[in-house]
Amino acid sequence: MSDAAEAYSKTLRSTINRLKQRGTYDHDTIHGIIDSAPIAHVSFNPTSLDDDPFPTILPMLAVTGSYTAPGADLTSPIAVYIHGHSASRFMKFPATRADDPNFDPLPGVPVCVSATHVDGVVLALTPFNCSCNYRSAVVHGYATTVDDPAEKMYALTLLTNNLVPGTWENTRVPPTAAEMQSTTVLRVDIVCASAKIRAWEAGNDKEDLDNMALRDRVWTGVVPMFTSHGIPVPAGENRVLVVPDRLEKFVAAENKKRATYANDVAGRPYIKK
Amino acid sequence: MSDAAEAYSKTLRSTINRLKQRGTYDHDTIHGIIDSAPIAHVSFNPTSLDDDPFPTILPMLAVTGSYTAPGADLTSPIAVYIHGHSASRFMKFPATRADDPNFDPLPGVPVCVSATHVDGVVLALTPFNCSCNYRSAVVHGYATTVDDPAEKMYALTLLTNNLVPGTWENTRVPPTAAEMQSTTVLRVDIVCASAKIRAWEAGNDKEDLDNMALRDRVWTGVVPMFTSHGIPVPAGENRVLVVPDRLEKFVAAENKKRATYANDVAGRPYIKK
Repeated sequence: MSDAAEAYSKTLRSTINRLKQRGTYDHDTIHGIIDSAPIAHVSFNPTSLDDDPFPTILPMLAVTGSYTAPGADLTSPIAVYIHGHSASRFMKFPATRADDPNFDPLPGVPVCVSATHVDGVVLALTPFNCSCNYRSAVVHGYATTVDDPAEKMYALTLLTNNLVPGTWENTRVPPTAAEMQSTTVLRVDIVCASAKIRAWEAGNDKEDLDNMALRDRVWTGVVPMFTSHGIPVPAGENRVLVVPDRLEKFVAAENKKRATYANDVAGRPYIKK
Repeated sequence: MSDAAEAYSKTLRSTINRLKQRGTYDHDTIHGIIDSAPIAHVSFNPTSLDDDPFPTILPMLAVTGSYTAPGADLTSPIAVYIHGHSASRFMKFPATRADDPNFDPLPGVPVCVSATHVDGVVLALTPFNCSCNYRSAVVHGYATTVDDPAEKMYALTLLTNNLVPGTWENTRVPPTAAEMQSTTVLRVDIVCASAKIRAWEAGNDKEDLDNMALRDRVWTGVVPMFTSHGIPVPAGENRVLVVPDRLEKFVAAENKKRATYANDVAGRPYIKK
């Protein structure tokens, strides 16, 4: 864990109690997990709990950014941006909620954003010691509507280029007024955040390791898991006959990076609890 | 969508309003998405909202099952099982909550379980029409502690074998009394559920398609994305020199199935909104 200036403060809400050695509060770790995950999951309470006790989850694209300091690197305090169609319930919610006297006056909609990479299946001598290698980030914060057109454009550029870098600049931009109007961007100002990582081989209990008949029977190790990008498939309407070099390089680099990480951690020595 | 007997009923909470043609309430679709996702995200409100307005999310292994009718197939009404260390806050929560007069008397802890596969990055002529192919399931239900030892064993077997089929039978079982005591299983009885799927090529607006200079400049199509399983990496303590045939076959079959799906849908004709 890096020094306090580059980490989120531990709060009662974010402090990791179980398997503490897997926890971190580093900015760069947390932001990196969110930005490199194919999808984030966003949770909120759609109504007051008197009406409906269930929180809900929406899978959403999410990206970290800092509009107030766009030049800042990943170790600076930043926010999470999400977006959606302006007609969707969740996108309208920060504005709706602020107008509803049934809700507490808060700085925004209280949300949780979570992103997880599964990096391998860990196979041990017993079901109890089977596990997964993973990297997960959990962020709590207040979601508000981004009204400033410049910040909105900044966030949409980040979200688009987080799919494949350079996408924004290489398509028809800027968006039309109608496109901007039908898209809502929410900024989640981070209140607290933490990450949890398992990145090592299978571990077993001493009693099972002493059982040579068991060890001669049960294979133990890690099956690495990673997200792969396949060969780009052109749309029926596509007229560009060669896949852009930029895209080919992105696919190759992502595949190498993701497979390498999962394979590397699969062989790392076990870290005892 | 199949007939009503095999689908979850539409409720205000689960009804999909945006992009309705992507929605489904089919049991088999919803259960299949959860069981084949490497990880699920589970959301709950850890305290009464007066103390803390934030729902939280935990990434967890999840599997669907029906203990009351174990022979039932995926189209039958079933529950979601999750598990964790008995000392963790969330695992203790159903019991804690039932004893706390500050909470409403409910059949369990209201939770949301969500699982998502990202099947491709959809690249269009404009950022606005860029998207992802995906399959996502969202389930709302009440989580309760599984106290019946037989049901608990049933759920742990399902959870273990959902990592790699046959793991339970091929390790040291049954678990010891200490292992069972330090593991808590929760069952989420489903109140409502829905799934949303995008599984087709890039779509564009007519104005952009009429712009031949744009179409000659911007490649459009889908970069398929899928979860890959790598070559199994033995643990330092492993004594079984050959990777089990069962595991080799599982890795090959999963890789083929997941890549095939993502590649297939990348080329499917666009479905208009």
